[in-house]
Amino acid sequence: MMGRIICVGLGPGDPDLMSVKADRLVRGAAHVAYFRKAGRSGQARRIVADMLRADVVEHAMEYPVTTEIAFDSADYNSLLATFYDDWTRRLADLANSHEVIVLCEGDPFFYGSFMHLHSRLQGLCEVEVVPGITGMTGCWHATGVPITWGDDVLSVLMGTLPEEDLIAHMQSAHALAIMKTGRNLPKVRRALAAAGRLDEAWLVERGTMPGQRVARLAETQIDDCPYFAIVLVHGQGRRPQ
Amino acid sequence: MMGRIICVGLGPGDPDLMSVKADRLVRGAAHVAYFRKAGRSGQARRIVADMLRADVVEHAMEYPVTTEIAFDSADYNSLLATFYDDWTRRLADLANSHEVIVLCEGDPFFYGSFMHLHSRLQGLCEVEVVPGITGMTGCWHATGVPITWGDDVLSVLMGTLPEEDLIAHMQSAHALAIMKTGRNLPKVRRALAAAGRLDEAWLVERGTMPGQRVARLAETQIDDCPYFAIVLVHGQGRRPQ
Repeated sequence: MMGRIICVGLGPGDPDLMSVKADRLVRGAAHVAYFRKAGRSGQARRIVADMLRADVVEHAMEYPVTTEIAFDSADYNSLLATFYDDWTRRLADLANSHEVIVLCEGDPFFYGSFMHLHSRLQGLCEVEVVPGITGMTGCWHATGVPITWGDDVLSVLMGTLPEEDLIAHMQSAHALAIMKTGRNLPKVRRALAAAGRLDEAWLVERGTMPGQRVARLAETQIDDCPYFAIVLVHGQGRRPQ
Repeated sequence: MMGRIICVGLGPGDPDLMSVKADRLVRGAAHVAYFRKAGRSGQARRIVADMLRADVVEHAMEYPVTTEIAFDSADYNSLLATFYDDWTRRLADLANSHEVIVLCEGDPFFYGSFMHLHSRLQGLCEVEVVPGITGMTGCWHATGVPITWGDDVLSVLMGTLPEEDLIAHMQSAHALAIMKTGRNLPKVRRALAAAGRLDEAWLVERGTMPGQRVARLAETQIDDCPYFAIVLVHGQGRRPQ
């Protein structure tokens, strides 16, 4: 028997928004693997909590570090590279005889951690990836307002970018989705203000999940927010009227 | 009995990539409505061809015009506005007594035609929207390569934009998804070349659907392509190695 690795995109959080294919694979899985911060249950594992077989074998891939050291430091790079190398070997070994379902929030090919295993697994075993609804899509639905119209340009930005880069992109695009906010939220807020767009911005926390919260960014006082929070600016493009 | 309108995102084309929620709603629908070009079967209707109840009532919403006249002309605006006004009335009437499932390719809030009904239906009846996997997500999966890494900026551009705007955005973003290509493909190709990015670009036709085709844009000779074709440039951002 020849196994394989299938990474399934779980979508934004609501299990009902998983694809039919992902749902079938998760419910049938004998082996599941998922990333999580050490000591936490993990967002991906939480989404599928009510779907797993009773006899499923779980492989928790615990990040050696998340935000404790700078993501652009040599130490961070080295710790993460070793971590991904290690799990590549372990998953490739498992895939000799088993089918392993790797759980990934959102869409695996859109800033997903699985990409670091995907590139390393090439040539070692069969790997398939199932698309998912991105977290930002869940968040713009949480606002109840379309994100883009007509010829609108949508730019997806990371809160980890330098402030001047954020400002330039915020000025040149019509619609914005800003991810990796967390402790970068004050910088994101300053950049939006400098670009003249703070009043249009929404903060969406836990989009499509229990505890979902949608608020105008300018009216929130918080300087920190969950990693899964996304800041959105809606496009106002052309429409027949 | 009080009805309502539920617009479901059908995803990129493969019915297996529809959400569990969308799948359930489509299979149970007594009334479905969908947009199509007059005389065509319509992409949304095609995706659900094997899923509809035998007794389903179908409402084909046929665009009065698609690409025959300029999208920025007064005639186009007027024809489309009348079309959306008309179907708003008809769907709102139906929703007095029925649940109507409106089918929409991709994600309804991401450049979707339903948005023009959504805004008009506010206050007339209950309206719900179910997110879907975007067409561009299906297309980047068709290439087998992740679209964004680390701090990559992804910009989504329409081929209908002025050439100089396309060039500026192609130079400033790391990853690109260019939609509404069709007859704009020569302009998109020129803009990518001017931005120094033509060699990185892929053309994906019918992503996740039968007849899917993935090719390097620089190596294709075609000057026209299906409306659903998307041009992609992958980001090459930071990764631990």
